[in-house]
Amino acid sequence: MMKTPVYEARCELPPGFRAAGVHAGIKAEASKPDMALLVSDLPDTRVAGMFTTNKVQAAPVKLDRRRLEDGRARAVVINSGNANACTGPQGERDALEMGRLTAEALGVAEEEVLVCSTGTIGKPLNLEPIRKGVGMLAARLSSGGGPEAAQAILTTDTRPKMCMTRIQVEGKDVTVSGFCKGAGMIEPNMATMLAYVCTDAAVEPESLRAALKQAVDQSFNRISIDGDTSTNDSVFLMANGSAGTAPLSPAHADWPLFQTALNGVIFDLAMKIVWDGEGMSKFIELRVRGAASDAEADRAARAVANSFLVKTGWAGTYPVWGRIADVLGYCGVEIDPDAMGMDYEDFPVMRDGMAAGTPKETLDAVIAENRYTITMDLGTGGSGTAVLYTCDCTEEYVRINMF
Amino acid sequence: MMKTPVYEARCELPPGFRAAGVHAGIKAEASKPDMALLVSDLPDTRVAGMFTTNKVQAAPVKLDRRRLEDGRARAVVINSGNANACTGPQGERDALEMGRLTAEALGVAEEEVLVCSTGTIGKPLNLEPIRKGVGMLAARLSSGGGPEAAQAILTTDTRPKMCMTRIQVEGKDVTVSGFCKGAGMIEPNMATMLAYVCTDAAVEPESLRAALKQAVDQSFNRISIDGDTSTNDSVFLMANGSAGTAPLSPAHADWPLFQTALNGVIFDLAMKIVWDGEGMSKFIELRVRGAASDAEADRAARAVANSFLVKTGWAGTYPVWGRIADVLGYCGVEIDPDAMGMDYEDFPVMRDGMAAGTPKETLDAVIAENRYTITMDLGTGGSGTAVLYTCDCTEEYVRINMF
Repeated sequence: MMKTPVYEARCELPPGFRAAGVHAGIKAEASKPDMALLVSDLPDTRVAGMFTTNKVQAAPVKLDRRRLEDGRARAVVINSGNANACTGPQGERDALEMGRLTAEALGVAEEEVLVCSTGTIGKPLNLEPIRKGVGMLAARLSSGGGPEAAQAILTTDTRPKMCMTRIQVEGKDVTVSGFCKGAGMIEPNMATMLAYVCTDAAVEPESLRAALKQAVDQSFNRISIDGDTSTNDSVFLMANGSAGTAPLSPAHADWPLFQTALNGVIFDLAMKIVWDGEGMSKFIELRVRGAASDAEADRAARAVANSFLVKTGWAGTYPVWGRIADVLGYCGVEIDPDAMGMDYEDFPVMRDGMAAGTPKETLDAVIAENRYTITMDLGTGGSGTAVLYTCDCTEEYVRINMF
Repeated sequence: MMKTPVYEARCELPPGFRAAGVHAGIKAEASKPDMALLVSDLPDTRVAGMFTTNKVQAAPVKLDRRRLEDGRARAVVINSGNANACTGPQGERDALEMGRLTAEALGVAEEEVLVCSTGTIGKPLNLEPIRKGVGMLAARLSSGGGPEAAQAILTTDTRPKMCMTRIQVEGKDVTVSGFCKGAGMIEPNMATMLAYVCTDAAVEPESLRAALKQAVDQSFNRISIDGDTSTNDSVFLMANGSAGTAPLSPAHADWPLFQTALNGVIFDLAMKIVWDGEGMSKFIELRVRGAASDAEADRAARAVANSFLVKTGWAGTYPVWGRIADVLGYCGVEIDPDAMGMDYEDFPVMRDGMAAGTPKETLDAVIAENRYTITMDLGTGGSGTAVLYTCDCTEEYVRINMF
């Protein structure tokens, strides 16, 4: 039987990876680091990436897409505080230059450097601090630099988001370790905010892409903070093979364990994003069943997760199942209003489209928790299901995004 | 040349209409009226109605749809404080009974009474206060009762919403006068929150429906507070013919004036809903052009109007055009990211997908106003356009909907 991986909220880099984080001066406050660098020391490092589906794409996203066509890279340089999005041809030149400076400092080819930016949209990138930062980062790289890199990529996040696990592949220790950022403008679709996962396993390029896609579909693509898909969302999986295993692919006996470990690390990172959602006070797991199809179930879940009225209601002190029923009615999916049902945790709140009679005190106790599950049955008798992880919307969310 | 109607923020009922508003005890606070009645004294009163497109429909909405199939009614009885939605078969019996009590009190046929409810979803209607209220309302009906009816239908609204105008049809005075309610859970689609418009013109039934549809499409269907379409949205247009004109239809010489007056009254009521949006501090007019079609322009405008990030940004102190560009990128419509443009009032903020260079002070002055227009060019070169009226989302919105 496969041993279940144990996940830890740390980021110890696998052998052959180094990282660093510094304050370069992109953010005004000197206490806030704003640049990070993640490097693999092994030339034959495979990298898979997934990117935002937004038609407005930041300059670095366009660059990275091109550079990952061959599935190889050695380094990712990241700045927070400025998204380098909606910055036109100058923005593309700036992203190129940020990569060129990094390649020069590391002595690798330009094409082997990936570039990420996150922060304000529409403001030209100032290359002065970037230039300074790249030098500082290159000098500071260390195998223990994961946590400081995880810190340096943050924007409105309140804490770094890290996860790692160790598994045995061919009897050898293999590490899967990652970090990510994201707190607002989050409804990933095909990819998400910035996330970086490293492993010292060797993985076949096509298998690496497929493994990342499976992990992201179950995690970053199942969360929503505010329904906004950003211009910069990117997730990278780097495999440098330093563990000395044979290249992994689904044909390998240890593949299921590797995929499980990867799924687990990435799922944990995604949940950390929801738990750090801007101003959030409640973590809500939405489950939809009885939909005509999985796609309809997904649409219903997203409509509920993105309703202002529902989200603000979750921040409040009474169960808002009536508002949720309202959303299910207008979100464009097939429902049977007279057969719909809803549960808060294991307690029925709606049956046959009306109140189920569970005492108010019982429901009050459920919604007093900081995490609960709402299960919605659309009543069509269909077998479509979906799950989505989201959070409430508090006054703090508004304050954060007003300024 | 057609004389432009003059609109006033009052509700003087046309001759032959009476109304009343009372506190019946549905709302706990004795100072808050919670029932209203609007009656036409003329037997041959034509009524057109438009209703929510939500698949979850409140019991009274289902009842009114049936009763308006013949285009006739004499009275509308309304309660606030309870939506009678998601209340199952009992809710339908309660709506019927509310209508029956009213018919009895007025001495009209049950089928001639329309019923409306607005307030909390999922709570059974208590018929005791309704019974008492119907008696009080019938005793209190008066030709001057428009304003108190307008007051009694409110929920989270901060003020009553009334508009009237007088025009000349065949040389005779004709009044078009209405009131409405709505402040949250508002993104009407085909119809809207509760709205009642009366006229003493005689109007052909089919023409009455067409006139209402035209007016609603330009007004209630062009606003969004929070993207939520309610279970109870209803708008009624009652024409009792007491002015003694020939029945109006598009063939009548004064039809354009009548339609203009109706459009004007209903547009004004719709704008009053946006200006009273829950917690709103800014009125935003969104204009989209350069879209592949009008439908795509509409979709883009609604996505912008319903983005948490954009709405909370409008409440803040700097122009959020980057967030708007982000929404245009993910909302699923055709755009050219490198040709997109945006103006705040007459000042360019984005050209060719990047900052247009208008000084920050100029834009700061625009967004300091409590009303401004944002024009977005999607850059496709298409001729699709749309306009949408919306508002910002403040901490106050969250507070209102938490409780």
